Amino acid sequence: MKNYITHDEWCVIEEGFHPEYNEITESLMSLGNGRMGQRGNFEERYSGHSLQGNYVAGVWFPDKTRVGWWKNGYPNYFAKVINACNWIGIHVEIDGEAVDLAESNILGFKRVLNMKDGTLWRSSEIELKSGKRLKIESYRFCNMAFDESGAIKYAITPLNFSGEIVINPFLDGDVSNRDSNHGEKFWNEVEKETAHGEGYLTLETRKSAWDTVPVFQVCSGMKFEIYQDGKAFDFKSLPVKSEKFVGSEVKLYVFEGEETIIYKYAVNLSSENYKTEELLTASKAYIDKIFDLGFEALLDAHKSAWAEKWNQNDIIIKGDVAAQQGIRFNIFHLEQTYTGEDARLNIGPKGFTGEKYGGVTYWDTEAYCIPFYLSTADKKVARNLLVYRHNQLQKAIENAEKLGFSGGAALYPMVTMNGEECHNEWEITFEEIHRNGAIAYAIYDYINYTGDQSYLGEYGLDVLISISRFWSQRVNWSTDKQKYVMLGVTGPNEYENNVNNNWYTNYLAVWTLKYTLEAIDLVRKDENRFAEIASGLAFDVTSESEKWQHIIDNMYFPYDEERQVFLQQDGFLDKELLTVDQITEHRPINQKWSWDRILRSCFIKQADVLQGMYFFEDDFDLEALRRNFDFYEPMTVHESSLSPCVHVILANKLGKNEKAYEMYVRTARLDIDDYNNDTEDGLHITSMAGTWMSVIKGFGGMRVKGGKLHFSPVLPEQWESFSFRIGFGGSLIQINIEKEAVLVENLSDKDVVIRLYDQDVVVEAGKVARQSK
Amino acid sequence: MKNYITHDEWCVIEEGFHPEYNEITESLMSLGNGRMGQRGNFEERYSGHSLQGNYVAGVWFPDKTRVGWWKNGYPNYFAKVINACNWIGIHVEIDGEAVDLAESNILGFKRVLNMKDGTLWRSSEIELKSGKRLKIESYRFCNMAFDESGAIKYAITPLNFSGEIVINPFLDGDVSNRDSNHGEKFWNEVEKETAHGEGYLTLETRKSAWDTVPVFQVCSGMKFEIYQDGKAFDFKSLPVKSEKFVGSEVKLYVFEGEETIIYKYAVNLSSENYKTEELLTASKAYIDKIFDLGFEALLDAHKSAWAEKWNQNDIIIKGDVAAQQGIRFNIFHLEQTYTGEDARLNIGPKGFTGEKYGGVTYWDTEAYCIPFYLSTADKKVARNLLVYRHNQLQKAIENAEKLGFSGGAALYPMVTMNGEECHNEWEITFEEIHRNGAIAYAIYDYINYTGDQSYLGEYGLDVLISISRFWSQRVNWSTDKQKYVMLGVTGPNEYENNVNNNWYTNYLAVWTLKYTLEAIDLVRKDENRFAEIASGLAFDVTSESEKWQHIIDNMYFPYDEERQVFLQQDGFLDKELLTVDQITEHRPINQKWSWDRILRSCFIKQADVLQGMYFFEDDFDLEALRRNFDFYEPMTVHESSLSPCVHVILANKLGKNEKAYEMYVRTARLDIDDYNNDTEDGLHITSMAGTWMSVIKGFGGMRVKGGKLHFSPVLPEQWESFSFRIGFGGSLIQINIEKEAVLVENLSDKDVVIRLYDQDVVVEAGKVARQSK
Repeated sequence: MKNYITHDEWCVIEEGFHPEYNEITESLMSLGNGRMGQRGNFEERYSGHSLQGNYVAGVWFPDKTRVGWWKNGYPNYFAKVINACNWIGIHVEIDGEAVDLAESNILGFKRVLNMKDGTLWRSSEIELKSGKRLKIESYRFCNMAFDESGAIKYAITPLNFSGEIVINPFLDGDVSNRDSNHGEKFWNEVEKETAHGEGYLTLETRKSAWDTVPVFQVCSGMKFEIYQDGKAFDFKSLPVKSEKFVGSEVKLYVFEGEETIIYKYAVNLSSENYKTEELLTASKAYIDKIFDLGFEALLDAHKSAWAEKWNQNDIIIKGDVAAQQGIRFNIFHLEQTYTGEDARLNIGPKGFTGEKYGGVTYWDTEAYCIPFYLSTADKKVARNLLVYRHNQLQKAIENAEKLGFSGGAALYPMVTMNGEECHNEWEITFEEIHRNGAIAYAIYDYINYTGDQSYLGEYGLDVLISISRFWSQRVNWSTDKQKYVMLGVTGPNEYENNVNNNWYTNYLAVWTLKYTLEAIDLVRKDENRFAEIASGLAFDVTSESEKWQHIIDNMYFPYDEERQVFLQQDGFLDKELLTVDQITEHRPINQKWSWDRILRSCFIKQADVLQGMYFFEDDFDLEALRRNFDFYEPMTVHESSLSPCVHVILANKLGKNEKAYEMYVRTARLDIDDYNNDTEDGLHITSMAGTWMSVIKGFGGMRVKGGKLHFSPVLPEQWESFSFRIGFGGSLIQINIEKEAVLVENLSDKDVVIRLYDQDVVVEAGKVARQSK
Repeated sequence: MKNYITHDEWCVIEEGFHPEYNEITESLMSLGNGRMGQRGNFEERYSGHSLQGNYVAGVWFPDKTRVGWWKNGYPNYFAKVINACNWIGIHVEIDGEAVDLAESNILGFKRVLNMKDGTLWRSSEIELKSGKRLKIESYRFCNMAFDESGAIKYAITPLNFSGEIVINPFLDGDVSNRDSNHGEKFWNEVEKETAHGEGYLTLETRKSAWDTVPVFQVCSGMKFEIYQDGKAFDFKSLPVKSEKFVGSEVKLYVFEGEETIIYKYAVNLSSENYKTEELLTASKAYIDKIFDLGFEALLDAHKSAWAEKWNQNDIIIKGDVAAQQGIRFNIFHLEQTYTGEDARLNIGPKGFTGEKYGGVTYWDTEAYCIPFYLSTADKKVARNLLVYRHNQLQKAIENAEKLGFSGGAALYPMVTMNGEECHNEWEITFEEIHRNGAIAYAIYDYINYTGDQSYLGEYGLDVLISISRFWSQRVNWSTDKQKYVMLGVTGPNEYENNVNNNWYTNYLAVWTLKYTLEAIDLVRKDENRFAEIASGLAFDVTSESEKWQHIIDNMYFPYDEERQVFLQQDGFLDKELLTVDQITEHRPINQKWSWDRILRSCFIKQADVLQGMYFFEDDFDLEALRRNFDFYEPMTVHESSLSPCVHVILANKLGKNEKAYEMYVRTARLDIDDYNNDTEDGLHITSMAGTWMSVIKGFGGMRVKGGKLHFSPVLPEQWESFSFRIGFGGSLIQINIEKEAVLVENLSDKDVVIRLYDQDVVVEAGKVARQSK
């Protein structure tokens, strides 16, 4: 755990330079706008520890998977989010010495990520080896309003000299991924062009061995202007070209104490959105447009877009700056990663903040992210995320066929870019078929929240039927138990592998079958539409439904009669049942124990049985939840970022306030405080939606039942108050939870009825309802 | 399955060239002498399908393991048996055209591996593109008598022309492994030297990232002479040198119909046996020695060494040429792979016949190979194999420590070169801790066969204690079962992974603990020696023995009361219990099914419960064996080469003659007939010892009980008779099993008592005892 970031309500602040933590800070200070993004790298050269990262949404490379001995059903490739053209670069040289903070004497340094505005500001005062001192101030953003562009204001002030400096704003595509197999580069150059003060570089990804993966082209463009003494300066420039590189070198005379400002504008246009033959022309037009608007106008548009987001989504926590900073940090990065405007995109586990994990779509999207977008964005955002899976149904069916399933059974991938499975992690990932259930659950979740039942007939039912077909083939009848069993799976708790009858997976499978049968009944109200779907899927409703009902009625669930708890899997009670406090000095076990020891131990990486009890809470009474919580939570090491948030929600429900707060801090400040010692790799983006849930569903106690919003808020004693806004059924509602009362403000123009602590409360349009506690 | 090899009692014959099967033939016709070996490649250039392979015992490279996400306890490297200098090469060129069978018109071709002599002979009559015809006859061997050398007689006869030809006998170290990560080469050149008609090339392996692995040097040397018209020809030579290559080019005038013979002599000396600074000098001296002896004298010495081996080890089967060829093929390759003279060496799964699997030591050595060497070689050979493990005890303790064990617990590696674990196969190999038990069992097996109880005090006990310590930590007390359990293992049946309470492993663990306690009692007869051992291991005999006894008394063994069979593992009965004949069109499942489907299925790769019942047969009555055999064998796909042999032994014991014969053919002709479609990768060397066991322990019914040899032979109806020789207690006994009688011949000079079909038979020295059936 680290503690070098200043606590602040709106900003992430590094006071003084911490080169030893630079890669952590780069992760924390990442910028993005859903279309492109980047780590908080410096503009000028930096030869110290740094992970350079620029990413363009939807652009990736299928790297051959690494494996000892190949077995059928393994994914062919590991999809890598690739480091793209570095467009922020501005090389600065004085008397032949490159400006480089790692080589300079640092006199002053401050770096601020302003989450309210979505900007990154940095001020560095340095002394070069030559003794010359200067101040560099940079200010940049990835434009939320013009989402294929970014802009930088880069100001240089000589502190103890006047003289010539050389600057070279550039585009550099000669980059690689740190995790590539042997340092291979994934980009080839297509074309490049320079003109006075501008440059264009078109790159394309290397052709891979898999023809299902396209070659991507990205055209990056830049244009810059220079201001001295508050006026545009008419400079001369020298084009610089090399392999996958364009720059524009300028010699400038700078004056002691006077600021020279470079405004650099850049775009990244991808062949996902433009015809390749139009990429360069479109880039030039885009550059011209933003150049003409200028830095301040672009910044205003960007800030307005952020203001609109915060107006809808902000969570305000009073009396606890660390908690406030934590939650905003999570919301901020979620918003940067995915805007929901493009149904082809999804939410990568590291967003635009790092390379790790590969792929962009995990079950995290359905289990953690959809609830966030349901409450904080137009319903089309969550809908797009569902449609994304619908569009990949055929690939999911092919994926299941590769594993030996048939008859239209679908197994969605655990990790994917385009619907194909692309993980590289056999020991855990291979058998995590529970993701298939989360995809079905998200359909339920969406409809429950939005009431949009038409989704079923439009897109949902064929996904549900195909997933149910998978479950019905994946179980088998145990003659011994006279029940259906499900063998050889890995549950959400990835510290187990290849277990039998994982309770969560079994439960989710049966739930999917039940929900699919209900969905069939609903869609059948329109017999024509149903016939169309059934015919498209060659679905025999009678025989398949009968089989499913038989499984529903005869599924086996491991249970401990003595403790009255569900068993995570068969044989769980054979383990040595220890608690986390007995192994304090061994944590984190994923860094201190062998994989073999972890597998045999009782210790749980993330909620498993409890994840199921969270999903299906109405199926279990509070005492059952308490027994299971009390049994499993003490064995849970929360070494997955997806774990603490679920525990916040359940602990609140059980009145375990201290545990809830402890878990909240862990999830909210996971990255800022580097709890798991891995923030340098990038941020845990998808778990940030879990953090949001931990406030809204946890402390806020929000649920949607029978088309109505329910709240049963609990104010942690460490907080003076907290408030949040929720979009629901076209209304925007603000909930303020104070020490003495809960205030519900209806910010929309129609009355709403909510349920607060088991009482219906009518809140008139534009009014506030106050309920004392 | 293929059927292009001519059936012959002593030879493996390819009549006519089969380029499509060339890599299979190269595997089948491999030569070796325990110190070096090679695949049956051609001497001259061959541009068709070919896997070039030359290997030097004990020389390898630690290639970085490939893995998705690293976890603690994974081996750092995958030990590769590396392709070494090609010393057989003779380049032949006529009018600028290289002789290359892939580019020539083949008029006649025959290739013969003579297993009696250990020689490879080939005759090729070809027509070049120029229309020139010639005959090439080559004859070579890896010398069993001078085991760092080989020799080739290479005869060229022009068939329709007289004229100049160019020959260039060479040493080529610029080779790579087919399975290297990215085609990297593992050799660097140290020095090279040429002289008239000779050349020397010293190579060393690249420095690796692991300082526990030495850099190896090998100096290869060659010298050749040329005969025309039966007389040595005084030729002129031109040295040829390039990167890791030395040759000696000679222009010769050859005469139509007249043979020109090149005798090429070569040595491979390794830094494992010589100081590096002496390698070159030693190579020159060695070359001079064998050159002076000449081809015929060397061949005579080589044949004599083979005659001696066959005299001890031959199995003669009459009336079934395929079975005869099969068993000799197995014995021949075993003898080529390991001679037992060097305690640092062991028996690689592919021997000197291919690259696959890496490592040289698996549990195959203990479970399959030791019985072969016990009966067919001096007892020091088996003893050396045991001592090999003893010498690696410290590494086994370190290996266990890496996984979280302590107090001197030892876990021997599943795959090793130098005692360090070096597999790259997490999904299966990681948890196959049963190998530890096989290493203990081999100590018992050796002492039971040889009566050499002194081995315990000398080397055995510390290995046993250290392994027992591992088992006692690897089990845990299940409060639920009130028994000890063993979680998270993989048994011999590698079509399961991470199972709980694998019956075989649990049984083997308890047996080890019992045997160790017995061994302690035996060694304690010499209290001083015992005290010395106990002190060296910091062994507290009272407390540790007590703990072991508690485990022995309270171990859990999965059992099905209804069927009265041992259960392969917990939950086995939850599987859909099918039989192999229900999935005929799906075989082999490892090529047709996904790994996921294989894991969930009931199908068994190789004997697991039955492996245990074979090891500990006296613990179970015949009816228990029958029930388990009848339950498991129908589910067994025998897709491991180690499986059929165990079934031959058990089927014979149960009187299942047809099954025994079916399994025998499968094991004996596995490679010759390419049953598993993988002979091209190399031969299944260690399973060949299983083939030998299937005759001796299976059809021969040999056992050693109470220091006495037992036999209860069964003659398969397909055979007229079979006979074999067994070394036991310093005596050599030949058993002939005929239709009407069993003849036991005592070839030694002292009387022996054997037990034949439950009757003691005294066989006087030099006499034959005949017992009618």
